[in-house]
Amino acid sequence: SKACILRPLEAPLRYLFGPGPSNVPPRILAAQGRPIIGHMHPEMFEIMNDIKRGIQYIFQTDNNMTIAMSGSGHAAMECAVFNTVEPGESVLVAINGIWGERVAEIAERMGANVHRMVKTPGGYFSNKEIEQVGKKHKPVLFFLTHGESSAGLCHPVDGIGDICRKHNCLFLVDTVASLGAAPIFMDKQNIDILYTGSQKALNAPPGTAPISFNDRACHKMFNRKTKPVSYLFDMTHLSNYWGCDGQPARVYHHTGPVSGFFALRESLAVIAEKGLEESWKKHKEVASYLYRGLEDLGLKLFIPERDLRLPSVTTIAIPDGYNWKELLAYIMKHHQMEMTGGLGPSIGMVMRIGLMGYNCEKVNADMALHALADALKNCKKSKA
Amino acid sequence: SKACILRPLEAPLRYLFGPGPSNVPPRILAAQGRPIIGHMHPEMFEIMNDIKRGIQYIFQTDNNMTIAMSGSGHAAMECAVFNTVEPGESVLVAINGIWGERVAEIAERMGANVHRMVKTPGGYFSNKEIEQVGKKHKPVLFFLTHGESSAGLCHPVDGIGDICRKHNCLFLVDTVASLGAAPIFMDKQNIDILYTGSQKALNAPPGTAPISFNDRACHKMFNRKTKPVSYLFDMTHLSNYWGCDGQPARVYHHTGPVSGFFALRESLAVIAEKGLEESWKKHKEVASYLYRGLEDLGLKLFIPERDLRLPSVTTIAIPDGYNWKELLAYIMKHHQMEMTGGLGPSIGMVMRIGLMGYNCEKVNADMALHALADALKNCKKSKA
Repeated sequence: SKACILRPLEAPLRYLFGPGPSNVPPRILAAQGRPIIGHMHPEMFEIMNDIKRGIQYIFQTDNNMTIAMSGSGHAAMECAVFNTVEPGESVLVAINGIWGERVAEIAERMGANVHRMVKTPGGYFSNKEIEQVGKKHKPVLFFLTHGESSAGLCHPVDGIGDICRKHNCLFLVDTVASLGAAPIFMDKQNIDILYTGSQKALNAPPGTAPISFNDRACHKMFNRKTKPVSYLFDMTHLSNYWGCDGQPARVYHHTGPVSGFFALRESLAVIAEKGLEESWKKHKEVASYLYRGLEDLGLKLFIPERDLRLPSVTTIAIPDGYNWKELLAYIMKHHQMEMTGGLGPSIGMVMRIGLMGYNCEKVNADMALHALADALKNCKKSKA
Repeated sequence: SKACILRPLEAPLRYLFGPGPSNVPPRILAAQGRPIIGHMHPEMFEIMNDIKRGIQYIFQTDNNMTIAMSGSGHAAMECAVFNTVEPGESVLVAINGIWGERVAEIAERMGANVHRMVKTPGGYFSNKEIEQVGKKHKPVLFFLTHGESSAGLCHPVDGIGDICRKHNCLFLVDTVASLGAAPIFMDKQNIDILYTGSQKALNAPPGTAPISFNDRACHKMFNRKTKPVSYLFDMTHLSNYWGCDGQPARVYHHTGPVSGFFALRESLAVIAEKGLEESWKKHKEVASYLYRGLEDLGLKLFIPERDLRLPSVTTIAIPDGYNWKELLAYIMKHHQMEMTGGLGPSIGMVMRIGLMGYNCEKVNADMALHALADALKNCKKSKA
């Protein structure tokens, strides 16, 4: 029966203070709601060129091979792995939360020889151990998550790019949850492939994912013996669609999400107007303010080392005696506010509060703290 | 330099009378511009359930395994092939335009043993020859394009599902360009896997793609020896995300395009309100009106058999002595109207006019005819 579809669309007001998607500012929603043009119109190519420049700015890179995926962060993950790795090649994945697990799974499916370095959520890797394990497995690609949103960890990146370069390995970094909230310098830090998502500190709706490849990554991916397993994510085609391959004409590959690109362009304009440094500073300030408030409530931050905390997503240890699902359901019901539990290996270990981009304001931290205090007061505490 | 991104977004008014994307009605744009909610909120699952029902209606199917891809038609193509075929298995692809070429390429990349039946654009396949070639190659999957938009052909489907069933082969049909414009009955016609796109007769922006699998297809894809090459497009995960796997809880897989789903739901509501039969009838009427006008201009329709013409996308032979690129550029410049040339094998053979869904009105046919007449008058005709 088609009756249900005839009822009007209902989407209630929500404070999206989880790890993303984040609330979308009115001007980005307005951009997304504009009448569309064709995916191959010259004006669309201009918009895509602007997006490319905007991504170069937020990634702090001059890489020509800079595009947005027609998909979420997972599309960027698969694109990075599918294009730079051939079946049988060795890949090293640092796992300290869900994102490394995902990349390992993706690389295994396309036939890579996957090696895992695993820490429990909240753990991190020293440059020395990365080099040691790398020497053993001789990977063509090393993956690291900069913003490990499942644990609330912002992993140090300095020096790792140099190690990878020394050992002829590409350095792939996931900044889905950190980009715009914590400093990253793709070129200076010798990151070979970097990607992020649209729906975190950029505050666009989910559905597009910026990604950039430097010359080392391009050399590897454009000198393959085999074709990537996905036609849709093949960079030989995507680079043409985005005008990055030096060809005079762009040839139809797939139909990009025109409205999603409108929104992404607007979100890049917002952060470019504000300035990256200002955005990083703001996230740090609001996060510090939140930490203080959480500690005043008697809560314990999950990442003890202050400098390793992800400014966009704060993790707290589940308070003794409480059922975390009950706390979160109370906050959703009584405050129309999303906070979330852990993800993947951090499930049952943490509760997560995200204040990203547009949502990154002290007044929102106050609202979140108020809701948490209310939940702690009203949810049943077991005696165990 | 980030200067270009600081300029306001410019997207001019365009009459999208090409093969898609089509113009988006205000109410669908409004749905897409609404504040978002989380991809895992209960209200989002309700919206996804409504979308599932809406797709069942437009596909005329009761299949439980009915979802929307977080991507364009190519995502649905790859999802269909990746999940139902294992490396080394035989796939038969009917090619009479670009879409079959694409599916053959996709199947080859994931290691299938691909057999091609090829006709020039505008050509079609008899059930007898499909059965003969099928007997020879014993494919596990046979692909056919219902709406071959590159040639303007609407391929007959009756009886092919039965042939496939007899030979233990799955029948995969592409209706990206035809769904809503020409009748298709997934269950009655024994189609095992069917997909479409959001941006044609459904009039949503590009970025989502409905797809459905019947029990035969599910049996094959959920009894594989190998995992599909893509984690993102793996139906074991997507079926859970869409609440089709009978599990009590939906587990995070990827972040779906929340706004895109709002728009898709609204577009399904529009067609459900109008009724499928009414939509088919309207497309046929407006197309007939357009044919008459084109013939009055002295133009020749590319598909001679009236019953085989795709009602949503009309192809005309390039008129003698004219440069098709010049005609199209004139129409875009002077009428802000998109018509397009061929695509893939039909490039240089046809010009294409699409009047789909919201755009499918006689007044728009008149505008298109007026623009064409103006272009024929003002574009230089060579003496050759």
